Amino acid sequence: MTQERVCVIGDGSWGTALALKLVEAGHRVTMWSAFPESFERLAKTRRNEPYLPGVELPAELHLSADPFEAADGVVAAVSVVPTQYLRATMARFEDALGGTVPIFSASKGLEMETLRRPTQILREVLGPRPLVVLTGPSHAEEVARGLPASVLSASEDAEAAELAQRLFSHARFRVYTSDDPLGAELAAAYKNVIALAAGIADGLELGDNAKAALVSRGMIEAARFGQDSGARPRTFFGLAGAGDLIATCFSQHSRNRRVGEAIGRGATLTQVLDDMQMVAEGVWTTRALFGPEREARPSDLPIAEQVHAVLFEERDPSAAVTALMERVPVGEMEGLELDAR
Amino acid sequence: MTQERVCVIGDGSWGTALALKLVEAGHRVTMWSAFPESFERLAKTRRNEPYLPGVELPAELHLSADPFEAADGVVAAVSVVPTQYLRATMARFEDALGGTVPIFSASKGLEMETLRRPTQILREVLGPRPLVVLTGPSHAEEVARGLPASVLSASEDAEAAELAQRLFSHARFRVYTSDDPLGAELAAAYKNVIALAAGIADGLELGDNAKAALVSRGMIEAARFGQDSGARPRTFFGLAGAGDLIATCFSQHSRNRRVGEAIGRGATLTQVLDDMQMVAEGVWTTRALFGPEREARPSDLPIAEQVHAVLFEERDPSAAVTALMERVPVGEMEGLELDAR
Repeated sequence: MTQERVCVIGDGSWGTALALKLVEAGHRVTMWSAFPESFERLAKTRRNEPYLPGVELPAELHLSADPFEAADGVVAAVSVVPTQYLRATMARFEDALGGTVPIFSASKGLEMETLRRPTQILREVLGPRPLVVLTGPSHAEEVARGLPASVLSASEDAEAAELAQRLFSHARFRVYTSDDPLGAELAAAYKNVIALAAGIADGLELGDNAKAALVSRGMIEAARFGQDSGARPRTFFGLAGAGDLIATCFSQHSRNRRVGEAIGRGATLTQVLDDMQMVAEGVWTTRALFGPEREARPSDLPIAEQVHAVLFEERDPSAAVTALMERVPVGEMEGLELDAR
Repeated sequence: MTQERVCVIGDGSWGTALALKLVEAGHRVTMWSAFPESFERLAKTRRNEPYLPGVELPAELHLSADPFEAADGVVAAVSVVPTQYLRATMARFEDALGGTVPIFSASKGLEMETLRRPTQILREVLGPRPLVVLTGPSHAEEVARGLPASVLSASEDAEAAELAQRLFSHARFRVYTSDDPLGAELAAAYKNVIALAAGIADGLELGDNAKAALVSRGMIEAARFGQDSGARPRTFFGLAGAGDLIATCFSQHSRNRRVGEAIGRGATLTQVLDDMQMVAEGVWTTRALFGPEREARPSDLPIAEQVHAVLFEERDPSAAVTALMERVPVGEMEGLELDAR
């Protein structure tokens, strides 16, 4: 396709990997850094250590710390800011981004105090415009190294979803479209909670059977949560749901899984977070799920409840898993209104 | 619950693990061996090497090579015979098993020449009676060692499904019920085909993203195949579908995954099968899928097609994966009639 101008807002590992894909697809890409020091480091080293060790930034990738420079003339902006900082960061783009420029949102998680999803925050800060949720099984390290990946482009605006598909697609990075951005965002948030649980199972050395059962029941739990929140259950069984969930729960790259594993081996949450350089989004999502708005939601969330108890109420991880295993067996899809038409 | 008599037909690793669970649950269990030599070895060593290394058979477990002795007075029989030998083996129980004794079928795969499912074979050989499909993420080695697992008991006969649930359930072996035995059997068969593909991805070192995308799209492909065969798509997202698929695709225990991995690294099917002691059921299921009845089925089965081409048509594994990645991106759930009611 023709060369287009695109900016990537955020210079972490996933932002950098997405910027590299857009450069490979032939576009004129500017990656924006929130911090001048970060911009200067990237401009000087043309690498993004320690986030993407060993990956060179191509000469074609433009760098900027100025919202107006980065957003100048773009057909779309990719937002890859950690959800807890999204509101404050995007406020800096309020004037720089024209009123109709679509935003592709690649942030995952829920805002802790408000339980807001990334696209809700974007809409609140930037006003009505086409919003696309870009999500799927996509560890940045692998995408940056050129390994194949498939992701979902989900939007209520079909044209915007197809724009993301066109801009990103090439042989080793496939983009599928969907009309359920709500489901895509909730799936992306919820999978980190299940990844914490899967990590706990790893830490307790419960074996492949128990972990696979946990992950598959986690997928159903996420779908039930999504359904009760107005999303389409099917989204939770696709790339944005099952795909991302599986990648996260079975990868050494996943921070959330690793946090869970350390806790399963006996560490406390404070110890684990002290040792980590990056945020484990699932910890905040778990807290958000059981915040003040919890009462309003009818969903039964047994796995998330146990994760919450382990993280924030000092429940013994082994007791939490036992509690999950000892639930009265029922028909496995109870509460999920899902079936062939 | 009260002690019941149950027999397990088949003495492989999964048959032995299920027999151990029934003994632990307090029942009087006889495990039947198809071969006298095998019976004698088990009776003498009270172990089942090399299938379940290091696991002792408890004194309470009865052994037999006689169908009449094994089936005497049982409330149910568990059939754990490899699918390709099921017809011939069960014929030996035609007179031994009373007309109303339910059979719990734990065989996986499809009969190669006929494309028949295990319960179809059981019905043909043993006549009409309650049949239950017992399946889920359950590597025998882990179940035998007492690690937790959850499985599905699926039957058109709710009472029989609940009987299996009652007989097997205890704290570390959970049994959920379902009314879709067709879906449970097709999911159990299809997952081995996807596991071959996942193994090929492992062998090619394509990374976690690509493998997770493949597995999640494999789940959708299996659901579409199931739907077109008259099963309920939801079954493919539960323990019998997603759960077993995930366990198989991410475990070192899985023979099918290992066969795929060796092929991904450059071995031929003949070389790999020569090296294996046990059958990789997915190889025969793949062949069955593309047998004479293929024309009658409308499903688009892209992953299975590539696996078939790699196994039986000498397609290069790397070219097969490229073909999968280069399919025109479409809405990801196309062809699947699935949604919230």
